[in-house]
Amino acid sequence: MEQISSVKNTKVKEWNKLKTTRGRKKFGSYLIEGRHPVREALDAGIEYQYILVVDVEEDVDIVKRVDDERLIILSEEVAKHLSDTINTQGVFLVGTISDEDWSLPTSFKGKWLILDDVQDPGNIGTMVRTADAAGYTGVVFGNGTADFYNPKILRSMQGSQYHLILKRANLLRLIPTLIDNGMPVYGSLLSKDATAYDKVEGSSDLGLIVGNEGNGMSPELANLTTANLYIPIKGKAESLNVAIAAGVLMFSL
Amino acid sequence: MEQISSVKNTKVKEWNKLKTTRGRKKFGSYLIEGRHPVREALDAGIEYQYILVVDVEEDVDIVKRVDDERLIILSEEVAKHLSDTINTQGVFLVGTISDEDWSLPTSFKGKWLILDDVQDPGNIGTMVRTADAAGYTGVVFGNGTADFYNPKILRSMQGSQYHLILKRANLLRLIPTLIDNGMPVYGSLLSKDATAYDKVEGSSDLGLIVGNEGNGMSPELANLTTANLYIPIKGKAESLNVAIAAGVLMFSL
Repeated sequence: MEQISSVKNTKVKEWNKLKTTRGRKKFGSYLIEGRHPVREALDAGIEYQYILVVDVEEDVDIVKRVDDERLIILSEEVAKHLSDTINTQGVFLVGTISDEDWSLPTSFKGKWLILDDVQDPGNIGTMVRTADAAGYTGVVFGNGTADFYNPKILRSMQGSQYHLILKRANLLRLIPTLIDNGMPVYGSLLSKDATAYDKVEGSSDLGLIVGNEGNGMSPELANLTTANLYIPIKGKAESLNVAIAAGVLMFSL
Repeated sequence: MEQISSVKNTKVKEWNKLKTTRGRKKFGSYLIEGRHPVREALDAGIEYQYILVVDVEEDVDIVKRVDDERLIILSEEVAKHLSDTINTQGVFLVGTISDEDWSLPTSFKGKWLILDDVQDPGNIGTMVRTADAAGYTGVVFGNGTADFYNPKILRSMQGSQYHLILKRANLLRLIPTLIDNGMPVYGSLLSKDATAYDKVEGSSDLGLIVGNEGNGMSPELANLTTANLYIPIKGKAESLNVAIAAGVLMFSL
């Protein structure tokens, strides 16, 4: 069991870089912060390198679950330095990014939400939670979509990441493969040329693509889908929030 | 046309207080910030006392629409002081809070979203936009729900406040009145004792209550409704985000 009290410690410098996409890519690891999220991660049995705590007494239930070599005691100063929140609880986990994230299932089954260039971490987290609640099998993070080890996305998924399969993929390659294998893939478009969503029968296996908050789904992808759906807007609102649209579609299909 | 360059000016001090519920109550007015929101407010023909701008040239289209007595030129310092954002555009409107907010229509028609103790400004704004898109007539802000002149709520409604009727009411009194007048009012509950939402037929006139983010709808209200609905959760998610739940229900009913 190591103790670290300097923000200049090499490990601390490395962990601090895990807040950025670049740092996570370089070191192949990511940071989970907070008592409840760390407990959830341990419950889910994820791969990790270290658990970091400030107060062993207060977090004795977490400490008991870690072997000594992977437990590190931080000073409050170091915890504050690493924290992404205003009041840190002083509990972190350094997780291992899996190579499996990019390896797709040999056969896709069930319902999959597919994110094309979605930007807002809160929207992404909410959509993952909604997919979980709607009984979806997994979520594919496509090109341009923020990666799911982003601390804000991790926080807003509230544990749903452990109930679903999360994958990353090049969607221009994935969509044709899915369709070739007999899975219908629906796009969502803000266009009356698309099909009204309530005119489509749901099925037990399907893909549903939602696009960027401002620009929607990319036109290249829209050309590849089985059909593109839209939600008829009855009032004068210009558009629906992307997470709301995804929720309405997921519960309808 | 008045010019104000001191943050100690009496008017500036008053406007600054409009950021709080208490200040808005005291002065009967509220603040809209930003070029697009101010244009929308003018387009909607709302009642206002002043338009405040920093740069007359840049905002000549807005300035042209205001009579001289209601136009005030602010220094950049004052604009920064009043602003609720990091980079202010230097355009504000001081609106008049209407006494009508509390006076309910003599007969409620159409579909109404009813908010019981909803707290998060972003959730409230998203729900108002969704109600607009779903063709709802109005939104009732019940007891405990943040007031709709809150700057964050104003921002997140993105203009939908001008497409719908927004009202405030004591829900314990309102709900029985609606039901007595023949309008079904549905609550939403996170309970399997409630009715699955897709088992209920929509109707052209109805009320739909959504409750607090953490605690749901108040039990007193739940006892007053025509029926209480729930969205069956298929996965392991503990709950849906309140705005997603409201979206699924509004588009389904």
